[in-house]
This record gives sequence, structure tokens and C-alpha cells, in this order.
Amino acid sequence: KVMRMKVNDQVIVCDNNDNTWLCIINILTNDTVYLSIVDKIIENKELTSKVTIAQGIIYREKMEEVIDKITQLGAYKYIPIQMQRCTAKINDEKMDKKILRMNKIAKEASEQSHRSKLLEVERPISFKELLALSKNNQYDLCLFAYEIMENTVSLANIFKDKKYKNILVLVGPEGGISESEAMLLKENGFVAINLGPRILRTEVAPTYIMAAISSLVEG
Amino acid sequence: KVMRMKVNDQVIVCDNNDNTWLCIINILTNDTVYLSIVDKIIENKELTSKVTIAQGIIYREKMEEVIDKITQLGAYKYIPIQMQRCTAKINDEKMDKKILRMNKIAKEASEQSHRSKLLEVERPISFKELLALSKNNQYDLCLFAYEIMENTVSLANIFKDKKYKNILVLVGPEGGISESEAMLLKENGFVAINLGPRILRTEVAPTYIMAAISSLVEG
Repeated sequence: KVMRMKVNDQVIVCDNNDNTWLCIINILTNDTVYLSIVDKIIENKELTSKVTIAQGIIYREKMEEVIDKITQLGAYKYIPIQMQRCTAKINDEKMDKKILRMNKIAKEASEQSHRSKLLEVERPISFKELLALSKNNQYDLCLFAYEIMENTVSLANIFKDKKYKNILVLVGPEGGISESEAMLLKENGFVAINLGPRILRTEVAPTYIMAAISSLVEG
Repeated sequence: KVMRMKVNDQVIVCDNNDNTWLCIINILTNDTVYLSIVDKIIENKELTSKVTIAQGIIYREKMEEVIDKITQLGAYKYIPIQMQRCTAKINDEKMDKKILRMNKIAKEASEQSHRSKLLEVERPISFKELLALSKNNQYDLCLFAYEIMENTVSLANIFKDKKYKNILVLVGPEGGISESEAMLLKENGFVAINLGPRILRTEVAPTYIMAAISSLVEG
């Protein structure tokens, strides 16, 4: 009713198995809408690579902006990370409320960009837990964006000959990734990438990463 | 003095010929700073392609966000365009003030990303004037982002085998590019591009374009 729909209107419905259906409204009651399926929509708007963005905890407004943008750009998951140079804290008591709100932003952005999947915003984890994530075979590629360009590779190089299914990319907080963190990341199999020669603010980096992967993988 | 600099401090100076110099402060007076050159800085942070983003006039906050982002991502120029579906007007009397403010935002973002060139924000022009721009040989590639994906090409395809020096990319306002505008653009040599299969808000599109070009050209 909020959407001013009526009987015989068409709606697009996404199920939990990545399928999208064109449906028609048969009956509208106060608490239930009965639909019949008209057609299956084949068009897939999801990236072939599932990209998880992990980011040092940044201020709420910036985090919300990042989530809005990377959802539009097809990201799969967002995980805030407690890192050395974070000014925000992981055991913030308002965190549950914040995560709820961010998942709502992700839902709106998903609908706006006609995605069949929602981006999932997870509760913050520690840097140690992030390192452990790289070990459990969930990801076939772990990257971190590092502003000290020596010994970093470009995303173009990474995606030149190989395809990846599950990618984890870490971006630092406002203060960046510390040297000791960078060392630990490398020891745990994370590859240092650069995002071009210009220095980007931390809230722009995830957008760059998603746009670059989209253009390199989907182009 | 605002920057709390003193004699013997080092500063980085950019001239109008794309050169960057490492200098040292010799004398500080009330109105003049005397420097001597220590070294020329070779590192070039500019994109090899000059990319001009033209965009249907959008709300001020969004325009400022776009300018901040694309400056960090290496764009060369930003031109607001009066288009059919714009809600804002070209003959806005506050426009001069707005453009001034936007150039200030571009200056700050240039410094933040250590660029040697400032992004230039031009005064708004009409759609007709934009079409004329494509004719004066200033640009060797004119593109427009079109959300109706049929008959569009990807940026990856455009940059696959060829290099371009001066690129003009048009993005629509919130309401998008109209069919008649798209037709005129094609007739005037603009190529329709897509920005991946997901629908992007107009303020995200320029960021996508700049990140994609950076990863495809600099990668």
C-alpha cells in the first residue's frame, strides 16, 4: 500500500537463490499479497566475483557513504575492522544499532541499482580475526590497498589472466594501514595493491576498488 | 603562517607547466616567501589521458561530492550541462559563487591527493554547446554513459587497443539522458558506454568512470 500497488500490477521479486521473477498481483489483503509468476528474469546484475570489502572502522557518516556506493557497485559484503590507527572503537555500545541502520542503507541501495542480492554489513571484527579469515579457504584472493606504492601490484595485473570467485579486500581507516599491520598481512597471504598513483581518501578507496573490478571483470 | 611554516622548512611547489619542485624556505616576510629549489620531483601523478567529465546539472551538494571524488581520481575538467531532465537551471544568479566554491573544493582535493594539476570547474553550458565541443578537435574521444544497455560498449572495450589523449564523458542528471538527447549525441559522434549491469546514481557514475579509466589505462 505504501508503494501504491494494486491488483494486476507487475512486481519484480528476488528469492534467496539468486533468482529474479516477474510476478503479477492477484489478491491484496491487509497483511498478505498473493502473486502469480509471469516469467523468470534471466538478466543477472551480480558481479561474477563475490567481493568483500573489509575496512578499518571509520566515522559513521563515511561508513554509510561507502556502503551506499559499494552496494550500487555490486559488492557482496562489508566488514568493519578494528585496526591500530582507528579512532572509533569496536566495543561501541551503539554498534548494534549502527549495523542495523547500515544494513537498511544497503537494502535501499540494492533496490535502487536493481540488484537481486543484498549487501550484508557484518559486525566489526578485530585485525586478528581478519587474518584468520584469510586462512579458512573462504576466499581465493586476499588483497589490501597500500599507499606505499613500492612492491604493490595494480588490480589490472591481478585480473589479467585469472578469475577469482571470492575476493577479500582490506582498506585502512583514515590514518592508513600501519607498517606492522602491512607486514602481518603479507605474512598471512594478503597481496598489496595500489589504486593508481594518486592518494585517495579512505572513503573513496572502496568505490575505486569496486569500479575497477567491475570494469576489469565485466568489461 | 597559517600553515605554521618556518625558514628552512621544505615545501612542494607546482608550476603551470606540470612540473613539481622540492623547495626550501629562505626568507619569510609578511607578504612574500622566498624559496630556493632543492630538486625537481619527477614522479608524475597525472593520468596520461586528460578526462573531462560533463554532467547534467545536479543539486549543489551532489555536484560538490562529484568534484571532490573525481579530483582525487585524476580528472582534468568538470563542465555542468543544461539538459532536458535537469531540475536546476543554467541561469541561476548564484552560479558564479557556486563555481568559485567548487573550484575551491577541487583545489583542496588536488592537494590531498598530491596532484600537480588542479581540476578546473567550468561555468555551465547548454547541451547545444556541448555538442559543438565534440566538433572542435579538442577531444579525440567523446562518450556518454547510457543506462539502456543495448548498443553500448564497456570502457574495457574502448581502452583495449587504443590510447586517447583528450576524453570527454557525459553523464546525465538525476533523471538521466532523454532519448532525443541520446540520438543527438550519437549523431554528433558520441559513443554510448555502459557502467556495468547495475543502475548507478548520477553522483556515482563519474567516480566509476574515473576509477575504471585509471585501472584500465594506468594498471
